[in-house]
Amino acid sequence: MSQTAVADFGLIGLAVMGQNLILNINDHGFKAVAYNRTVEKVDHFLANEAKGTNIIGAHSIEELARLLKRPRKIMLLVKAGSAVDDFIEKLIPYLESGDIIIDGGNSHFPDTIRRAQYLESKGFLFVGCGVSGGEDGARYGPSLMPGGSPAAWSHLKPIFQSISAKADGEPCCDWVGETGAGHYVKMVHNGIEYGDMQLICEAYHLLKEGVGFTSEEISSIFAEWNKEELDSFLIEITTNILKFKDEDGTAVVEKILDTAGQKGTGKWTAISSLDLGVPVTLIGEAVYSRALSALKTERVNASRILTGPAVTKFQGDKQKFIKQIGQALYASKIISYAQGFMLMREAAKDNRWNLNNAGIALMWRGGCIIRSAFLGDIKNAYTNNPNLENLLFDPFFKDAIEKAQDSWRQVVAQAMLLGIPTPAFATALTFYDGYRHARLPANLLQAQRDYFGAHTFRYLDEFTDDKHPKDKDVHLNWTGHGGNVSSTSYIA
Amino acid sequence: MSQTAVADFGLIGLAVMGQNLILNINDHGFKAVAYNRTVEKVDHFLANEAKGTNIIGAHSIEELARLLKRPRKIMLLVKAGSAVDDFIEKLIPYLESGDIIIDGGNSHFPDTIRRAQYLESKGFLFVGCGVSGGEDGARYGPSLMPGGSPAAWSHLKPIFQSISAKADGEPCCDWVGETGAGHYVKMVHNGIEYGDMQLICEAYHLLKEGVGFTSEEISSIFAEWNKEELDSFLIEITTNILKFKDEDGTAVVEKILDTAGQKGTGKWTAISSLDLGVPVTLIGEAVYSRALSALKTERVNASRILTGPAVTKFQGDKQKFIKQIGQALYASKIISYAQGFMLMREAAKDNRWNLNNAGIALMWRGGCIIRSAFLGDIKNAYTNNPNLENLLFDPFFKDAIEKAQDSWRQVVAQAMLLGIPTPAFATALTFYDGYRHARLPANLLQAQRDYFGAHTFRYLDEFTDDKHPKDKDVHLNWTGHGGNVSSTSYIA
Repeated sequence: MSQTAVADFGLIGLAVMGQNLILNINDHGFKAVAYNRTVEKVDHFLANEAKGTNIIGAHSIEELARLLKRPRKIMLLVKAGSAVDDFIEKLIPYLESGDIIIDGGNSHFPDTIRRAQYLESKGFLFVGCGVSGGEDGARYGPSLMPGGSPAAWSHLKPIFQSISAKADGEPCCDWVGETGAGHYVKMVHNGIEYGDMQLICEAYHLLKEGVGFTSEEISSIFAEWNKEELDSFLIEITTNILKFKDEDGTAVVEKILDTAGQKGTGKWTAISSLDLGVPVTLIGEAVYSRALSALKTERVNASRILTGPAVTKFQGDKQKFIKQIGQALYASKIISYAQGFMLMREAAKDNRWNLNNAGIALMWRGGCIIRSAFLGDIKNAYTNNPNLENLLFDPFFKDAIEKAQDSWRQVVAQAMLLGIPTPAFATALTFYDGYRHARLPANLLQAQRDYFGAHTFRYLDEFTDDKHPKDKDVHLNWTGHGGNVSSTSYIA
Repeated sequence: MSQTAVADFGLIGLAVMGQNLILNINDHGFKAVAYNRTVEKVDHFLANEAKGTNIIGAHSIEELARLLKRPRKIMLLVKAGSAVDDFIEKLIPYLESGDIIIDGGNSHFPDTIRRAQYLESKGFLFVGCGVSGGEDGARYGPSLMPGGSPAAWSHLKPIFQSISAKADGEPCCDWVGETGAGHYVKMVHNGIEYGDMQLICEAYHLLKEGVGFTSEEISSIFAEWNKEELDSFLIEITTNILKFKDEDGTAVVEKILDTAGQKGTGKWTAISSLDLGVPVTLIGEAVYSRALSALKTERVNASRILTGPAVTKFQGDKQKFIKQIGQALYASKIISYAQGFMLMREAAKDNRWNLNNAGIALMWRGGCIIRSAFLGDIKNAYTNNPNLENLLFDPFFKDAIEKAQDSWRQVVAQAMLLGIPTPAFATALTFYDGYRHARLPANLLQAQRDYFGAHTFRYLDEFTDDKHPKDKDVHLNWTGHGGNVSSTSYIA
């Protein structure tokens, strides 16, 4: 037990992600040490999954600390929440100044901000690292999004960029930013993942119920889409899922309960967007769609009571409709990513992070669940113009939307008429139409607020004059009675 | 200065709402005492707005407390947030056991829960009271939604039910529930108000840009709608706003900056719905629409870069389209209220409040911003069946949606084709279609989650058997490689 410091990297938490990540670290020539709260799991892992590797085990936090070279690099892959704080407290007595704790779980970014400040105040370094790619990603190359104490990065870079996925030869891992930036970007990644999955489900729903295709046929359609601009991991696995047969030769997918679970990161993204006032409508609808799916019993009752339209099957050219649905999916996806980058822009302002949009696109380009050719195009857009105001203004995406828009409109209109719910397709299109309107009907809304609540309004620039100066809050006495006190004075 | 306790009710905060509410209390024969942090405002109010009334003034908290009969009833109408806590702390030294503090501001319900617990622990009573109706409502009869310490209600009831609005002879005020129930219901009221206003804006936008009507013509259309099932305060004031002329004879509304403000209660409703997992999609879209409206500069830029459809003017029968838009507005409104009641149902479960749906509908029936004939129909639905699972299952509303649905689908489809954003109309329809689907495409989503993250899924009841028992979580090894560890064990 008197071993000296031999290990490059420590990992706590031997559930599926932890097991696969440490095997990946070992594959790249780093000496890794594994620890788990239930220590029997360490021995079981060494005797089975890790047999024949250079991975060593620790049976206590003290032993883990003793085995690690300085500065120690210890990654937690445990359930987000109090387990992270508990392990941090257990580790602190064995750490020295400059040692690095990495939280690789799906922690909520305000917790990461708090932990970074806490550990830095004690002289340690802390990194909140988004890890995406699921079990396969962790094993063979995940996307890694580390942020926190900047001094940690030079120590982690060789390991993280070795084990991460590669896209076009570049590692899908780079430094994201200070404090909670890594977990924030991972959270937005997950929110976008919710959106991508919802869009695929809507396309599947339209093809299945609106057109009447079988799972096998829909699998072929997705296989075709995967050769074009929609080329991505999620489209690829959808192709595989739709043709995966049960023992009786029917598609397993059609036997699966339509009640979606969620771990909260999509919800966090939607809440952050509401807090920051950014219209991330597509992720919002994706989260609500999972909530609606969970109301299975109520929906079954509703299906017996509430009626739909008379015609529920698409009547036109099916081959053309397939192409239109693909275009609707593509255009909606562009909107979702544009909204995601708008959100990160505001979060960066709010937290004073210096986020690199091209770098984020590259980190998501490979390894993670949303990896796609599409993210290469986003990387190009931000590389070509790092100050791009909005992804939609990039010539490539502007053209893509222009080419897709007629199909997109037809598909959403058809879905509304056929009674097949496409909340994400629809909100993407209404966002696009709202965003490109220099004038929205919020003038009426401001008039209403002033009418009933004396909330005041402003004049449009083109109507300002001496009597109605620019940037002056105006209250009109619309009714001729009631007070003239405007509610900006609503402070006792 | 040695006055004895003469006053029935104390009010702190003489901004517009406070001034009007205390004048209303005076009108109903109660002796009220006014206090304000800036005490000059008290004298100014007594010498002006309150001249000739029985209202008296207090120039200190101590004097306010001295002037009030026991149990003291002191209402705060101050800015939500720390000002409420500050006044509570200032009041405590002058209060006796059983005295009642009422917070009439737009406080966030978790704060109200906290304050109720704090004051009750000290032997005082606390009521968080939603007040709606704007300045006119406060003056001539608001909707009041009080909740908190139940023992307070018998003392407040005579005053509150006197000063509140009346609908069909009944006061629009009743006891809502424990702790934060009053402010929660007020919050949902405000969220629904956001939705109602957004729906009106979308109808206006379609009529203006899609059909080409003038403000004057649209005013007449709203005036007609106000005679039918849409009869409501917001439709009425929209009629008035649209015909309100500026000095130069043009409609003021067309000169107003289209950048909507918000005070946060709509956002709180959306966040609560995400937290509780209730698909309150229409309020969500309404909040996002205000956020989008606020991005004025970016939208102006976008309007120069991004293109819309080739045809942007409605080509069909205009009179028919007006009727269809009215029906789309009505159906969407039904969905919004159904979602709001779904949300209150979950919040009541979560907080163990015993909410009375018919009572809530009655409180909103008159006095407040969302007052309408429609809320009488909702009251009837919940009176007829207090255990109604969903508002949409009530025969009246089921029929109303059935009659409206073809128009609703046509309008949303047209808006998508014409490029006029109708996010609230659209999300209402996609919710309706999702809600009435016994099977949604979330089966594919569950398969995806299990494929990449080993999140497991369940079989549909009709496919369960000995091998796939009901309620058993299943993980499939979709790829033939990777671990067999499912992520339910994702705890170290």
